[in-house]
Amino acid sequence: MHRIPVGVLGASGYAGRELCALVTRHPRLTLAFATANGQRGERAELPRGGSVTFVATEDAPLGKAALVFSALPHGASKAWVERARAAGAKVVDLSSDFRIGNGANGANGANGANGANGAVPYGLTEARREAVRGADLVANPGCYPTAVLLGLLPLLEQGLVARGATIGVSASSGVTGAGLSARTDLLFGEITENYRAYGVGNTHRHLNEMRAMLQELRADADLVFTPHLLPAARGILATMTVPLARPLADPLAPWKARYAHEPFVELVDEPPELRHVVHRNVVRIAALPVAHVRTPTLLVFAALDNLLKGAAGQAVQNANLMFGLDEPLGLPA
Amino acid sequence: MHRIPVGVLGASGYAGRELCALVTRHPRLTLAFATANGQRGERAELPRGGSVTFVATEDAPLGKAALVFSALPHGASKAWVERARAAGAKVVDLSSDFRIGNGANGANGANGANGANGAVPYGLTEARREAVRGADLVANPGCYPTAVLLGLLPLLEQGLVARGATIGVSASSGVTGAGLSARTDLLFGEITENYRAYGVGNTHRHLNEMRAMLQELRADADLVFTPHLLPAARGILATMTVPLARPLADPLAPWKARYAHEPFVELVDEPPELRHVVHRNVVRIAALPVAHVRTPTLLVFAALDNLLKGAAGQAVQNANLMFGLDEPLGLPA
Amino acid sequence: MHRIPVGVLGASGYAGRELCALVTRHPRLTLAFATANGQRGERAELPRGGSVTFVATEDAPLGKAALVFSALPHGASKAWVERARAAGAKVVDLSSDFRIGNGANGANGANGANGANGAVPYGLTEARREAVRGADLVANPGCYPTAVLLGLLPLLEQGLVARGATIGVSASSGVTGAGLSARTDLLFGEITENYRAYGVGNTHRHLNEMRAMLQELRADADLVFTPHLLPAARGILATMTVPLARPLADPLAPWKARYAHEPFVELVDEPPELRHVVHRNVVRIAALPVAHVRTPTLLVFAALDNLLKGAAGQAVQNANLMFGLDEPLGLPA
Amino acid sequence: MHRIPVGVLGASGYAGRELCALVTRHPRLTLAFATANGQRGERAELPRGGSVTFVATEDAPLGKAALVFSALPHGASKAWVERARAAGAKVVDLSSDFRIGNGANGANGANGANGANGAVPYGLTEARREAVRGADLVANPGCYPTAVLLGLLPLLEQGLVARGATIGVSASSGVTGAGLSARTDLLFGEITENYRAYGVGNTHRHLNEMRAMLQELRADADLVFTPHLLPAARGILATMTVPLARPLADPLAPWKARYAHEPFVELVDEPPELRHVVHRNVVRIAALPVAHVRTPTLLVFAALDNLLKGAAGQAVQNANLMFGLDEPLGLPA
Repeated sequence: MHRIPVGVLGASGYAGRELCALVTRHPRLTLAFATANGQRGERAELPRGGSVTFVATEDAPLGKAALVFSALPHGASKAWVERARAAGAKVVDLSSDFRIGNGANGANGANGANGANGAVPYGLTEARREAVRGADLVANPGCYPTAVLLGLLPLLEQGLVARGATIGVSASSGVTGAGLSARTDLLFGEITENYRAYGVGNTHRHLNEMRAMLQELRADADLVFTPHLLPAARGILATMTVPLARPLADPLAPWKARYAHEPFVELVDEPPELRHVVHRNVVRIAALPVAHVRTPTLLVFAALDNLLKGAAGQAVQNANLMFGLDEPLGLPA
Repeated sequence: MHRIPVGVLGASGYAGRELCALVTRHPRLTLAFATANGQRGERAELPRGGSVTFVATEDAPLGKAALVFSALPHGASKAWVERARAAGAKVVDLSSDFRIGNGANGANGANGANGANGAVPYGLTEARREAVRGADLVANPGCYPTAVLLGLLPLLEQGLVARGATIGVSASSGVTGAGLSARTDLLFGEITENYRAYGVGNTHRHLNEMRAMLQELRADADLVFTPHLLPAARGILATMTVPLARPLADPLAPWKARYAHEPFVELVDEPPELRHVVHRNVVRIAALPVAHVRTPTLLVFAALDNLLKGAAGQAVQNANLMFGLDEPLGLPA
Repeated sequence: MHRIPVGVLGASGYAGRELCALVTRHPRLTLAFATANGQRGERAELPRGGSVTFVATEDAPLGKAALVFSALPHGASKAWVERARAAGAKVVDLSSDFRIGNGANGANGANGANGANGAVPYGLTEARREAVRGADLVANPGCYPTAVLLGLLPLLEQGLVARGATIGVSASSGVTGAGLSARTDLLFGEITENYRAYGVGNTHRHLNEMRAMLQELRADADLVFTPHLLPAARGILATMTVPLARPLADPLAPWKARYAHEPFVELVDEPPELRHVVHRNVVRIAALPVAHVRTPTLLVFAALDNLLKGAAGQAVQNANLMFGLDEPLGLPA
Repeated sequence: MHRIPVGVLGASGYAGRELCALVTRHPRLTLAFATANGQRGERAELPRGGSVTFVATEDAPLGKAALVFSALPHGASKAWVERARAAGAKVVDLSSDFRIGNGANGANGANGANGANGAVPYGLTEARREAVRGADLVANPGCYPTAVLLGLLPLLEQGLVARGATIGVSASSGVTGAGLSARTDLLFGEITENYRAYGVGNTHRHLNEMRAMLQELRADADLVFTPHLLPAARGILATMTVPLARPLADPLAPWKARYAHEPFVELVDEPPELRHVVHRNVVRIAALPVAHVRTPTLLVFAALDNLLKGAAGQAVQNANLMFGLDEPLGLPA
């Protein structure tokens, strides 16, 4: 059977190499090229075996690809996405350049235009499946927003959050979330046996797309998002303290209803662990009641692999939809 | 100069061995005996050098010690504490048996009697220094409560928390917090590259003493406490989302006022990191404002070494006070 | 197409769960039962997704399986292997009970009878493919011997080791090699930031099968094998210092000749890294010359995943041969 | 009592910060300045508390220091050492610039002149105490050579190594040994759950000083040195396979005789563990016999903290001698 030729722009980072690995194993895709300016001509090993040789991004034979994934840096991605579109390829952009709530892009301002009415669907697949299916360009969500939004979506859609409440989100990520960049603060010697928050006070770059989604869903709540850096390579766990509008007999009921037929959402009765979601394209969610409080409160947990369901895996999930393939094709679940 | 003879009950665990190490290096203390039923007659290496040979707890020469630290398990500690007291020793109990809010002990019920009026001071040193100074028996706080309460104390005492608010506390601890016990879920292979919550929904054993303190301080707020297990050996970081009664011009002002002369409290402008507090008897606190919210909100961080400021170090700090020694004597700050 | 029903005995440990995971994903195998006395009736998650529910070993419906893998402990495995054989199943035994050099088994004494002429082939696939192909019972090698022997085999077979030489083998393993057992010395807090040798002085249980193989190959050399415990979950790296009978123009030539058509042997020009072999059924080998020595000497490195090529993966590789299937079927390479 | 003013050149790296921390806690030393070109004017936290503010190296007030430690990079250190000497300070150089066997320095060529007769003593304290005591400039050994040479010294001095033997040394180091440099191959994500050899085939920079010492000791043996990178921050373990000239009744006897009165050498009966030597200025050595070999063979283990006994600690040990202070003063043993 014919395989769809795929190009990966910015393929030398963690997400880029996962994209190459997924494409290489996908039964209907084939890797046409992979670019990396800093490593042009070099061969790199891929996760779970195999290797790829990079070309410079400016030498990318865009015309040869029917599908392009861009894992280029935020800001740098937009121009290349437009070039790939002009060359006729469908594109999934993993940068924030086309995401909802991205003020840097006129069409994606705080009014959420891009999400609600704009030309570029926000590829949170479980929330926007129909928009993604018909799209030629999809803005793949950030890793934290994927966890937080998939975790909160059922409560928000069903109006279950207490009015005016403060939703405290404490999220922790493995260091691959910070990318494969030569920073001394990401050295093994600085991370092992350490743990710290960063991007504190709602200053993290990913806040915009979370706020834009909350706005679209007319949530009447403050979201306080605090990311942390784990001494681990992969995985995100978001722990969310949510004051409720009313007690729930079955705490997990909103998620059961919302995600009944989702192939990549796992609902569990215990707090999810990173080790059960890494190397898989799933989000695992638990919702547990809180004792000794006057305001009924839920603890919602969402765990995923930041490089798969939080990046490359969700990108392939979106691409499958864009090309009319089975949504789970080629994805490790 | 005369050295005070010290006994350590339950010395083979992580906190017990830290106690032995601190006593060994303390200029005014000397180790008279250390007990460990499972390892009687065995020699164990201490952190940072030196070693100790254990005797069985029932063979402990209680009469030889002027000071006894009990690191025996919760429930088992009480009887031995009473025996040590009867033999004339002053005692710091690291178990929960005499702590405020401990329902298992009539004198320490949910009414907080033990904290407010009871005979056994709750040894959160920075909050109860005068009560500790005159005491013959002190109940050393848990590691999580030390971090959470020292972090929240200035806001609570100064009435700065929004009425009826939900305080979301997400705390993460290194695995030594779970003790040196042969549990398969604490094996390296189960913890590395993993992260998970436990004791979820305000069910953690440490909740009682936190709630009792909040009650004493007449806090009108829900505390939602969610502990997590880090792939790290030592250290606790508590991340606390606190809706405020009113905005603060200087977010750190309440802590500066409250802890101006404290030798073991460090106030910092950036989120604290575990690596800067481990192997030291300090709590490091930061308070940072939150943008994009309607209810003024603070993020409060408190970091400490669970085995030192959260256990053995605070115990020695209390013992120094009980014996009229300089509070910081023999403590690594 | 018909799937072969498979039973896994002793399935709750690390190797047992990998076996279940491999069988579950194998296109021609299906899991009939998995046993674990300590966890009978419990459900366990498998690596990379899926789960299994254990039955007690004595309740194993042996008659339902055409293929049985035994991951029972050394000593306990033999009786169950014989029962499974009596029930008509082909068996791959992952314990040491039927391995060459195992003095506990009359047929497998130090004379290497079992290896050379005995009824139970030693399942080092790349060395014994034909014997395995026709077998009903195969003794799967230990993880260390697989790395060491596949690394040394070409030199030994081609008579390239200096006569009377001492081959120094320093090998390091992730802690899953020690099994999923409740030992305090394997706790995260004892392993992180630590490293140590064990089984020192040729006292490790795995030495027997290595010595038996060397004897069969008439090697005139001392093997000094020193295993170490890494602060990592998976993977083995063996570093072998080998004095040579004569210099080699191309240090890797003996391996290129010997392993030219092997699907699971990867020869590399740089020292192999664990991260490139874990979660894969391969051994990666490098051979590099040594400067500043009078006796020509090679450094030989062999790296593999102790749970896959060192255990469950090699077991499936052997089972594929025993059932006339394609050797790589269902294996992640 | 008067404190000796100390300058640290190149203080921002791992060894430099340890030096600052040791000087700060030393009862007879005081930190006059610390330099770091890349971080001039910045404040850095020190291990175990305290902080330092760096000046640029060219702004170092060399005249203010009676003692200078240089932790500048190899090659760059020599000129600054000479400037500090010209300004009247005694100097301990932690770079390789003045070490024996360093071909880049005429006076320190492969003839071992510098070690045996040269002006700059090689500061392997336990081997060169008298030369160090009278020196104004000492070349502090590398971390690996300290472990390897202190481990082998008794065997070499007492002529116990088999003639013509190959000594296989497999050594593993925590990543701080590679320095605090922005290299992607040292990122947490590349090191965790990984392990690999490097500098293979006797090509490691540290080989020179080891070979020069062996030459001085007239050792008739090949040394094959293979370093590895551990997924750990600190510590070195050297595992040495040594064919002996004759069997030893008490394997540890040569070390007991040689190191009877050494304050920083610990002899142990079990293979040493990193966790028992890190954060301490000691080398821990074990020697164990090997079974099943024809040539009598010893396994010698030497473990130390690469930043203390392997760098900053040994440097202070040497400085104490150079200034007529007690050798162990200010050192954590």
